Amino acid sequence: MTNTHTDLRLQPNYPVWHPFTPLMGASTELEVVKAEREFLHLAGGRVLIDAVSSWWVNLHGHGHPAIAEAISKQASTLEHVIFAGFTHQPAVTLAQRILDILPGAHSKVFYSDNGSTAVEVALKMALQYWHNLGTPRTSIIALSGAYHGDTFGAMSVADRNPFNAPFAPLLFEVQQLDLTPTDDIWAPLDGSDQHTIQQMEKILAQSKPAAFIYEPLVQGSAGMRFYKAALLTRLLELAQQHQVITIADEIMTGFGRTGPLFASEHLTKNTPELSPDIICLSKGLTGGFLPLGVTTCKDHIQQAYRQEDIMATFFHGHSFTANPISCAAALASLDLLQADHCSAQRQQLSASLASFTQSLQAHPAIAHVRHLGCVLALEWKSSDKTGYFNEARHRLYQWCIDRNVLLRPLGNVLYIIPPYCISEDSLQRVYAVIKELLAELQ
Amino acid sequence: MTNTHTDLRLQPNYPVWHPFTPLMGASTELEVVKAEREFLHLAGGRVLIDAVSSWWVNLHGHGHPAIAEAISKQASTLEHVIFAGFTHQPAVTLAQRILDILPGAHSKVFYSDNGSTAVEVALKMALQYWHNLGTPRTSIIALSGAYHGDTFGAMSVADRNPFNAPFAPLLFEVQQLDLTPTDDIWAPLDGSDQHTIQQMEKILAQSKPAAFIYEPLVQGSAGMRFYKAALLTRLLELAQQHQVITIADEIMTGFGRTGPLFASEHLTKNTPELSPDIICLSKGLTGGFLPLGVTTCKDHIQQAYRQEDIMATFFHGHSFTANPISCAAALASLDLLQADHCSAQRQQLSASLASFTQSLQAHPAIAHVRHLGCVLALEWKSSDKTGYFNEARHRLYQWCIDRNVLLRPLGNVLYIIPPYCISEDSLQRVYAVIKELLAELQ
Repeated sequence: MTNTHTDLRLQPNYPVWHPFTPLMGASTELEVVKAEREFLHLAGGRVLIDAVSSWWVNLHGHGHPAIAEAISKQASTLEHVIFAGFTHQPAVTLAQRILDILPGAHSKVFYSDNGSTAVEVALKMALQYWHNLGTPRTSIIALSGAYHGDTFGAMSVADRNPFNAPFAPLLFEVQQLDLTPTDDIWAPLDGSDQHTIQQMEKILAQSKPAAFIYEPLVQGSAGMRFYKAALLTRLLELAQQHQVITIADEIMTGFGRTGPLFASEHLTKNTPELSPDIICLSKGLTGGFLPLGVTTCKDHIQQAYRQEDIMATFFHGHSFTANPISCAAALASLDLLQADHCSAQRQQLSASLASFTQSLQAHPAIAHVRHLGCVLALEWKSSDKTGYFNEARHRLYQWCIDRNVLLRPLGNVLYIIPPYCISEDSLQRVYAVIKELLAELQ
Repeated sequence: MTNTHTDLRLQPNYPVWHPFTPLMGASTELEVVKAEREFLHLAGGRVLIDAVSSWWVNLHGHGHPAIAEAISKQASTLEHVIFAGFTHQPAVTLAQRILDILPGAHSKVFYSDNGSTAVEVALKMALQYWHNLGTPRTSIIALSGAYHGDTFGAMSVADRNPFNAPFAPLLFEVQQLDLTPTDDIWAPLDGSDQHTIQQMEKILAQSKPAAFIYEPLVQGSAGMRFYKAALLTRLLELAQQHQVITIADEIMTGFGRTGPLFASEHLTKNTPELSPDIICLSKGLTGGFLPLGVTTCKDHIQQAYRQEDIMATFFHGHSFTANPISCAAALASLDLLQADHCSAQRQQLSASLASFTQSLQAHPAIAHVRHLGCVLALEWKSSDKTGYFNEARHRLYQWCIDRNVLLRPLGNVLYIIPPYCISEDSLQRVYAVIKELLAELQ
């Protein structure tokens, strides 16, 4: 354990304002100079294990040479071109490859730059679908605990919480369902789930919502909270019966995080007809190298835009839509993801996390522990309410950093979501730090 | 003139949905395979002049080797790391270099991924400023004709128009000022400008707006519309007198497009006290290579967030905030921008555009022609209303494309905003195509 690092944020006139970071306080930013595989190399020589994939984006390890090379090659061939009136093979090939692996038959890919914009595109695509049909619907159903990004549309469909409180007067209203967490997505429905289903039934009886947006089975920011597959199945059935467009936010869950390539597949393997109408992707899309978002839709959605009237056009775009360099990174990442080697890595990782989960069951300091695919979360017992502002967060974070492991608790929820290439040795170091912390807290 | 190209969008099951592009219609996407300097190389061998810098992003020419090399180097060193708790030199150095060249003393740089998110961050930064001071203000003043991006917050502060009509019920209300266009930003105020000033005075007398957002002197999407420096000066003075936070959207105008590095400098060279409190940048920031946005602020803005209370934190972020590869591209682009060679290029370009403007004055087919720095716009006489949906657009666009020049009219407004490296030969070809079109239309 060592504390030597460059205290960049303590320097006078430090020019950067960091996301989700208090401007006042003792914390400092650690300076990263290089990264490879699961390791972050700091100025001064310390090496940390990145056990959260740098905000859940990195799939194949930092600095993977195949992705770096694809980026390098694309940057010197076609770095960018306006994506209206023009197209390029990296965008077309990537779109086709994404459509090929999605659950359900999706027919179009709309590019943007990050997860928030992928969600904004999804919401607008659903709203204008109804507008174009001449039967406008303007309300959205969302889940309690939801997080879909930080732009105004994405904030509006999120849980109302201290994050978005200063902006509440400017957010549009949504119809929110109460969601009850579980540690086992396969558990049978109980009374609290029935309450959620009844809320949905009531909304559908009283109004005609445009869309239902959800993080499938795992809510990331809420604290890697799971909910039941049987509940989501019932909500999707109800939505379909009332022609409500279903939007799966697979930004965190996509590209293998929960086991299958997309979390929606936990449901669609048995009920393929419940595949979402619209899917949002980002984060792991480029293997964690570059910003890129996509929003995909089924054929009936885009058909509503296929009209002679120019006003039926989807007037949305960003300057760097379908940036060729980002697309090239995504193609290289998909090559790695679809290789047998990566499947084997994910199976090993999942087995290792399952075994660690087992070892934590019934630990007196732990209120909950849950595991799905390549995600593990454990909730500390705490006198405070579980949630982002639970003050256990600061202690847990610093404890792990001091031991050269990057874990970033969401309040009193500590979670592991590492790059798939992480070695068993590194995992054991992560587990050891957590066990040491557990012993300390007892 | 040749019409051979790859009709990618006409292929069955073409998987991409292009921005701002009707799904039905005769148009097809041209496939770009390579780009260098001002030239786009199409599949099949055609070469087009990119006279609009691919949606106003490209500064130094496509595929500039210095930027490509910086990207390549960064991708194999540190491709990305979570930007909360961690930092890196590309982000810190870039932030400092941006602060060094901005008009006014700005103290913090907040990174995001594109222009829309830079605007969302600006709006939220201004709103939470008032929230944190304990004196909430929630209304925003904006300009008629404004465009600030396509996410819900950015759409809300834009002109209400057919682009955002399907989403109108979900947009928040703004206080909009009527803006009268001019062809000369230095023209004296007239009655219509006085009307705008009186609107502003009335709003300030009746309410306490949080912020005033504006594209300084040139409104891009509205049709490269200019408005008067004296008007903006007066509006900013009034805003300052009422402690309204001023937000300059320099996403299009930044990095030398209108002459000085930032359009705000047209004002601040004489009245430095009128520099904006918050500035939004994107597009040219990376030289047009990769998505990146920044929002900067003066010290008093960030001071309102510097509190012991964790709820005063700015809870905004994106997964790829301050992506090191994008930052490296931006640093390389700034190196090029600040070199004498680029200043000389911009002066030559501006002189050439001035001379072409002169030659178009009093042309019977032209209603307006205007020029500022590296932007030239001309408005066709049209029986339709001037605007994006003026149907001259389709004819003008295709005419130019058929002659291997990419110009993308905004309705009946044709504009030139090329990479700074464009050769005089290429400019003469662009001018010749426009003159040929003028002759044809007479």
